[in-house]
Amino acid sequence: MSASERRQAPPAVAVSTVVFALHPPAGAFVGDDTGEFVEDPDGDAVTIWIPLVRRTRPPFEGTWALPGGPIEWNETLIDTALRNLLAAVGQEPGYLEQLYSFGGLERSAEAQRVVTIAYWALYSAHEDAESGAQAGSSDQNVAWFSADSLPRLAFDHADIVDYALQRLRLKTSYSTVAYRFLGEVFTLGQLRQVHEAVLGQRVDPANFRRQVLAQGHLVDTGETQKGTPFRPARLYRFRAGPDHEQRSTP
Amino acid sequence: MSASERRQAPPAVAVSTVVFALHPPAGAFVGDDTGEFVEDPDGDAVTIWIPLVRRTRPPFEGTWALPGGPIEWNETLIDTALRNLLAAVGQEPGYLEQLYSFGGLERSAEAQRVVTIAYWALYSAHEDAESGAQAGSSDQNVAWFSADSLPRLAFDHADIVDYALQRLRLKTSYSTVAYRFLGEVFTLGQLRQVHEAVLGQRVDPANFRRQVLAQGHLVDTGETQKGTPFRPARLYRFRAGPDHEQRSTP
Repeated sequence: MSASERRQAPPAVAVSTVVFALHPPAGAFVGDDTGEFVEDPDGDAVTIWIPLVRRTRPPFEGTWALPGGPIEWNETLIDTALRNLLAAVGQEPGYLEQLYSFGGLERSAEAQRVVTIAYWALYSAHEDAESGAQAGSSDQNVAWFSADSLPRLAFDHADIVDYALQRLRLKTSYSTVAYRFLGEVFTLGQLRQVHEAVLGQRVDPANFRRQVLAQGHLVDTGETQKGTPFRPARLYRFRAGPDHEQRSTP
Repeated sequence: MSASERRQAPPAVAVSTVVFALHPPAGAFVGDDTGEFVEDPDGDAVTIWIPLVRRTRPPFEGTWALPGGPIEWNETLIDTALRNLLAAVGQEPGYLEQLYSFGGLERSAEAQRVVTIAYWALYSAHEDAESGAQAGSSDQNVAWFSADSLPRLAFDHADIVDYALQRLRLKTSYSTVAYRFLGEVFTLGQLRQVHEAVLGQRVDPANFRRQVLAQGHLVDTGETQKGTPFRPARLYRFRAGPDHEQRSTP
């Protein structure tokens, strides 16, 4: 195909996923906003982390992009998202939902036009600890970046990340999706840190405690946190109800 | 291409739109759940109407389907939706938003697999009255059906309609989208009828009036309805704010 034939061909369709986690998996490569690896990321700051995959061919060769790729003929949309997440992160997410489809004319420049169906996913700290996954440790083309300092992204993937962050913030404000970042049991302080990371601002601990307990989604396990030098905090679990959030592809 | 090559080809991508209106445009063909035209639809029942297009080629030749089709190489997703709506309905909608992308393996049977990016649209009575559009009047392959009695639909379009009806109901419950069904000015009774049509149930007039006025979205125009034999009702308009609902394709 010539460049102009390629430009006028029917658009292809792909899936890309914005993954959010509270920290990179153990052993994962971590990058900074220049796209370079960093040795010792600041482990104290509570922030949202996103894994990216470095492109190994044109267009945008060498640039970081969202995990994703074309849909195989025998794969549903959500199966395509899961396959690419397994390859990039090494395990299934705790939450996966379709986000939006992006079909702008300029998104893939000279190459054949691609319409991308974007998903967003959450990984919990718990899943990481249980599986002991060393995601990305052997593949220098997968690294985790703080959502606050992403490198330049391929295509319109920066727009897709912004859109997913908006959805995450909105959904955190009205649903129970924030629990998906945590393990099966957690302290109110940990849950507050999730909200602080998502909203990008401090949350008053006393107000947060009162509001979250009033919502009735939490069950006091009767247990307390182990291995802390401070007064041990009470452990809660989420009162599981019908799962309204994870929606399979019809 | 042989049938098996076609089956294993990369999926194509198309746009389909679920259109909702409070009644068919003047002069439009109206069908019933057998897919046949009806002479005199019951004009009193407040219900939601949906335009469908009869397929003139396989697969599902002769079956009714959502307005839509493939994306041209130089067309954004929303432009594809608009082009197909102009062809089927004769005018631009008052509201248009991406709904969800459908990529199930069985949706197009033996033909090449198609991933459909679904949109939903609202048409207001006002637009119809102003333009005097005679949508569909010359094309027997476009007809309007009550959402309560749709004929058998091609592909998985019945699932897409169900999904859009869910979104319409949900969005009516928390946003001001219901106003998009009405003209610039309307009575509280008309607004209540929209809610009744969307929710499929009676709404108590006194409660509705109290709740909707308390929300502060309505402005009393000081005018009253003309041409009614009853006590003329007060006309309101929607207090326009930033439009959070209509979202262009990024």
